[in-house]
Amino acid sequence: MDEPRTIRIDLGPRSYDVRIGSRLLDGLGQWLGELGCRRAAIITESNVGPLYGDAAESSLRDANIEASRITFPAGEANKTLPTASAVLDEMLALAPPIDRGTWVLALGGGVAGDLAGFAAAVALRGLKWLQCPTSLLADVDASVGGKTGVDHAAGKNLIGAFHQPSGVLIDVETLRSLDRAELINGLAECVKHAVIRDADLLGWIEDHAEQLLARDGGRGAFPADVMTELVARNVAIKAAVVAEDEREAGVRAHLNFGHSIGHAVETTVGYDVLRHGEAVSLGMVAEAHIAVLRGLWNVDERVRIESALQALDLPTRREGLDADRILPVLAHDKKNLGGRVRMVLPSAIGQVDIYDDVTEAELRSAIEELDPNAHGA
Amino acid sequence: MDEPRTIRIDLGPRSYDVRIGSRLLDGLGQWLGELGCRRAAIITESNVGPLYGDAAESSLRDANIEASRITFPAGEANKTLPTASAVLDEMLALAPPIDRGTWVLALGGGVAGDLAGFAAAVALRGLKWLQCPTSLLADVDASVGGKTGVDHAAGKNLIGAFHQPSGVLIDVETLRSLDRAELINGLAECVKHAVIRDADLLGWIEDHAEQLLARDGGRGAFPADVMTELVARNVAIKAAVVAEDEREAGVRAHLNFGHSIGHAVETTVGYDVLRHGEAVSLGMVAEAHIAVLRGLWNVDERVRIESALQALDLPTRREGLDADRILPVLAHDKKNLGGRVRMVLPSAIGQVDIYDDVTEAELRSAIEELDPNAHGA
Repeated sequence: MDEPRTIRIDLGPRSYDVRIGSRLLDGLGQWLGELGCRRAAIITESNVGPLYGDAAESSLRDANIEASRITFPAGEANKTLPTASAVLDEMLALAPPIDRGTWVLALGGGVAGDLAGFAAAVALRGLKWLQCPTSLLADVDASVGGKTGVDHAAGKNLIGAFHQPSGVLIDVETLRSLDRAELINGLAECVKHAVIRDADLLGWIEDHAEQLLARDGGRGAFPADVMTELVARNVAIKAAVVAEDEREAGVRAHLNFGHSIGHAVETTVGYDVLRHGEAVSLGMVAEAHIAVLRGLWNVDERVRIESALQALDLPTRREGLDADRILPVLAHDKKNLGGRVRMVLPSAIGQVDIYDDVTEAELRSAIEELDPNAHGA
Repeated sequence: MDEPRTIRIDLGPRSYDVRIGSRLLDGLGQWLGELGCRRAAIITESNVGPLYGDAAESSLRDANIEASRITFPAGEANKTLPTASAVLDEMLALAPPIDRGTWVLALGGGVAGDLAGFAAAVALRGLKWLQCPTSLLADVDASVGGKTGVDHAAGKNLIGAFHQPSGVLIDVETLRSLDRAELINGLAECVKHAVIRDADLLGWIEDHAEQLLARDGGRGAFPADVMTELVARNVAIKAAVVAEDEREAGVRAHLNFGHSIGHAVETTVGYDVLRHGEAVSLGMVAEAHIAVLRGLWNVDERVRIESALQALDLPTRREGLDADRILPVLAHDKKNLGGRVRMVLPSAIGQVDIYDDVTEAELRSAIEELDPNAHGA
């Protein structure tokens, strides 16, 4: 078995380690103990809890850490303030009462991390927390950066807090239980990382596409080493961006490539119809189109990205998208300033910049571009 | 008219000014404009909104700041997550949609400051906010330190965030509309500041007790200069403590003198029965009793504090307090660590220390001491 990898997220007094490898969940309690945790509330959701909740709990108990478990209903549709409120009710009803020495352990995919992290951020005005992501999307995206929060009818992640965890433990073995669609969901963010920072990573993904998609519900051989490498490379990219700009005042916005239009598409179509990664894939195609329209990017590179997305089974076109519904949502993006749509556009694979002069005509053209019949008519 | 006073809250990149004086509300919009605000959501409650909401709004509009107003029902009983959620719903429904350049203006007493500050902390993962307190308690306590939050059935302020404002504007003229009981409420915290840090302030309060209580619903002469002096001295004390310990890891706990038992009494009796200052007054008497029991403090100084509280019409005894109900609430105090009750006890007027070895017997004796019949039996 490969050695686990450790990546330091460098945020001054809020720095922490991300540990990535195979079978790390067994050592969860020991690590928490080393970090000074004596009591933890494990917050998980109804899909992941039954799979890994017992393992997490026994690991904690073996390390003499008092553990309680709180489970909320799985799914992005439940990533809401009422769900967070119900989780807080359970936390505050624990006996003996929790205090500021109590930790939160967030166990699950992006929804569990965001919601449990938010509960940690606001319970007693802030508890320490350790994140234990179990989906590829959470591994490569939500595990770094300290963004926590819940969705609102008006848009995704509109309520939340920046609250850095004190550690992230990624056991790639948990990806065995991930269904193919969720795996692909995470791969979209990997392509994004390549486009904004790392042309080499794109080549690596292209070379390993088959292996990345090979594991299938635990039937085939599980490429733990390839997964560890994939996650470590992506965490390192995100870590570098976040270390430069913790509160999203500047370059951290680069991580939003594909997300301006992606989020708006996701909100319009419905969080439970379209997966986040699928929306981001469509968003990258649409935003790449704007970059090409502006002469920032050449068509060949754009075609290469679309091919990579297709090789990973990610969608690059979708029927029925309605610009008249998507544009108002875009106007509500919380990264906007002064009512202008901010957008990250590439000028090469590995290089992007921020623009706030994107026009309505460009946005409409980009959304039309996503129509599979647009060029075939 | 006296010159306004400015006190700098020194928190590195989160530093801000507190401006204190008469008729400052007229200049609110100008100051916000200088701070870079172009749009603000005024969050206020149903008592204060009708009194000062229009003035705040016109001041903002005169400074070309787009202003919306959101009003929630007044009262500590409404300082809850459901109320915060309703306020967030209104904020996120504003048109055009708010963005990260939108400010929150918290207008009102402690409840408005805590709840609006919390809404600012979690809307879009954090908006800038300016606090405009209108009660003496909020002026001398909640205006400094960045604590925001809401109450929970399990206890006060159990859900919240540290989120520093970008400025605090205290117009002492707003104290004209404060009823006498609310004025007295704030004076309890002033006595607390004297006990933990400033023996001179206690003398000043004793000397000015009559003037401090003289203003009465706008009928008599309003001692704006005395009020400005009182608020400025208290803000300076709290500012020094908070600057030393922003996240309440050490000396900031000194501010909890009177609050361990005070909060527990308040929770047990009911937030709407007992005012916060009354509860803190009782808490100070009880905790001072423990200090004397332990030989830390002499009886004369304790008697002096009780006399000062009585001169300000604050309660020092209360019938019907039940130790069996108060003790479990004390055990839930979010400042506890490892299940031990933490308490701040004085050794002189102006000097306190933190103890975590207070026994159940001492707590029971302190609560018995609050019984008006205990010594008369």
